[in-house]
Amino acid sequence: MATVDRWLLPDGIEEVLPPEAARIEAARREVLDLFQRWGYEFVVTPHIEYLESLLTGAGQDLELRTFKVTDPLSGRLMGFRADITPQVARIDAHTLRREGPSRLCYAGSVLHAKPRALSTSRSPIQLGAELYGDASPASDIEVISLMLDMLALARVPDVHMDLGHVGIYRGLARAAGLSGEVEQQLFDALQRKAVDEVAALTEAVPADLGKMLRALAELCGGREVLDLAQAALVEAPAEVHAALDELIAIADGLGRRYPELPLYFDLGELRGYHYHTGVVFAAFVPGVGQSIAQGGRYDDIGADFGRARPATGFSTDLKTLVSLGQIQVDEVPPGIWAPDNHDLLLWQQVQRLRRDRQRVVQALPGQDVQAARAAGCDRQLVLVDGGWQVVPLAS
Amino acid sequence: MATVDRWLLPDGIEEVLPPEAARIEAARREVLDLFQRWGYEFVVTPHIEYLESLLTGAGQDLELRTFKVTDPLSGRLMGFRADITPQVARIDAHTLRREGPSRLCYAGSVLHAKPRALSTSRSPIQLGAELYGDASPASDIEVISLMLDMLALARVPDVHMDLGHVGIYRGLARAAGLSGEVEQQLFDALQRKAVDEVAALTEAVPADLGKMLRALAELCGGREVLDLAQAALVEAPAEVHAALDELIAIADGLGRRYPELPLYFDLGELRGYHYHTGVVFAAFVPGVGQSIAQGGRYDDIGADFGRARPATGFSTDLKTLVSLGQIQVDEVPPGIWAPDNHDLLLWQQVQRLRRDRQRVVQALPGQDVQAARAAGCDRQLVLVDGGWQVVPLAS
Repeated sequence: MATVDRWLLPDGIEEVLPPEAARIEAARREVLDLFQRWGYEFVVTPHIEYLESLLTGAGQDLELRTFKVTDPLSGRLMGFRADITPQVARIDAHTLRREGPSRLCYAGSVLHAKPRALSTSRSPIQLGAELYGDASPASDIEVISLMLDMLALARVPDVHMDLGHVGIYRGLARAAGLSGEVEQQLFDALQRKAVDEVAALTEAVPADLGKMLRALAELCGGREVLDLAQAALVEAPAEVHAALDELIAIADGLGRRYPELPLYFDLGELRGYHYHTGVVFAAFVPGVGQSIAQGGRYDDIGADFGRARPATGFSTDLKTLVSLGQIQVDEVPPGIWAPDNHDLLLWQQVQRLRRDRQRVVQALPGQDVQAARAAGCDRQLVLVDGGWQVVPLAS
Repeated sequence: MATVDRWLLPDGIEEVLPPEAARIEAARREVLDLFQRWGYEFVVTPHIEYLESLLTGAGQDLELRTFKVTDPLSGRLMGFRADITPQVARIDAHTLRREGPSRLCYAGSVLHAKPRALSTSRSPIQLGAELYGDASPASDIEVISLMLDMLALARVPDVHMDLGHVGIYRGLARAAGLSGEVEQQLFDALQRKAVDEVAALTEAVPADLGKMLRALAELCGGREVLDLAQAALVEAPAEVHAALDELIAIADGLGRRYPELPLYFDLGELRGYHYHTGVVFAAFVPGVGQSIAQGGRYDDIGADFGRARPATGFSTDLKTLVSLGQIQVDEVPPGIWAPDNHDLLLWQQVQRLRRDRQRVVQALPGQDVQAARAAGCDRQLVLVDGGWQVVPLAS
């Protein structure tokens, strides 16, 4: 391998240099502090786990994205986390085992064997918040509000929200007695809004249900879509009405809090269908094809770890958040330059200044005032009457 | 796989729960802020890289500790980082390419396929600082001082330091014309202080060099060891004297700054011999077999990335640092409880309080004052004369 090749990073794997790395770190702190102010407690999940734990309750797409390796200690297959949400659900269901609602948040790298989409990162820094133990729309409204607050903190401009509810399609498909395979085909066709395929796949189902399933492909747009849906789905089973009522309650709750926020509804869009059980949502900005933050309700996952708990939450990629937003972070403060001098009094003065949270950079042999400026210093320590004093850097 | 098995984490792989996770996060920030105050710039390195990049310049022990996986995109072998230091060296040598000295720091999880020692973690959070571009003892004194400052910040009690210098053994072995295999055997014997083996392995070398190599096994103890070494190695080649002089300069520099610090020297202890090129150091506390922070000089590594640069630095495991120390972190502040009420005025008041950096937890349907206390709240929002006011939580 030639020397030059050693420098190449794999596709979609990035390093972050100064000063961008300092911005990433500052944004991470700001967002985690925001989560804390909303009552969310920080947890740290492992980067690697037995594959069976990691993929429990998750869909096949997550399995395909997960790097796998054999544990030399146990001989069992392990996976590198491609998503932190299922790990946090396990912590809630198994480890914490609290009675009432539980709010948890996290931040950490995940790895994707295959990128989610062309030219997306395979090593995002996933940040997210999850609310367990309450099945009401109040929880969904809270996590979506927190997601919006995070985007506002990161100064992401022109955010609009997509909302859907997997319970509507699931309820209709169940009532129509659709089998696993046909349900999957119809699901795929709805995602692509392939109206002809949807029509062909629903030919054999009872007329009223077929009509409602076909209507889903058209039910997308502004708040009026929810009224149209109530009319179009009036004959639907009770669980479909319950799902639609939930979506309306969430939409209206958000509309009251964020009257200026563009809300877009799509009852045929079933983001994370295999994983989610209720409302699904995503935030977009103009000109970016992928959602910049997304989430939904996933009530069933805890059962695989011994306890079913209602669950809703969201996540984002910190690097995307920082690149699309204009988050205000404290710049690295100007520093103080200390000369290359072994005087113990200088050392003590330098340490005093650092304890006072000043940034002090000590010269190494041969460094001059040019190096002081390169290190971002605007002051220096000089010996005045036997004592070390901070004075402006000579220009 | 039974439900119960899904909860098991692999040996040496941990999750961190509240409130410990908040302490870890707070300590991470404190230490990174300390590094910044010393002039070190933060970088973020990838969790996964091509194996050839990851292991360049690293010893065989790192290769054995590295999880390997094939990149589905390129078909090439990749590794999960088991050490961040070589990655930072690459950033300095290849990506930043600065002329003068460069100070970099980092924090992130690493993974070890095999634990360093029995019952040590396989998923430490590695925190470290590296100084490139200066070959003088001033740089070694700086990074060791920063390491000691970090241990003081983390309130790790009763720290003592081990110091050695691989140039002493390397210079003697080279002068004695020892081949790779015998040099390795002698190295192993010295590590184990197996005096008989050392004697047998040095039988064939010239008498004066054999005597000096055998002396290394005995040269361990306090500051007096350095004087004994000067006497015992008086006939040694110049490079051995240069190494010993470096070690003395570093020891005396540290002794002036930290007169109370117990310094222990071991000229036969060659921590990271294959990787290091100069001084090696480690901090210990009583009752803990493993070092809690360690480092050394590793000047040669940058050459593999196209540019040889002097390099010295250290690293620690954040989780160990927090568990062994008594770092003072801000506790999560008492919160304010908001009732489960959709009033828009309440929402606005809650958001105002959060913008003022108050922690406000909103009740979910059915939660009462017990839940408020469980969420760490000592105040609540109540409606008084049409406005929401913060009052003490009713007891």
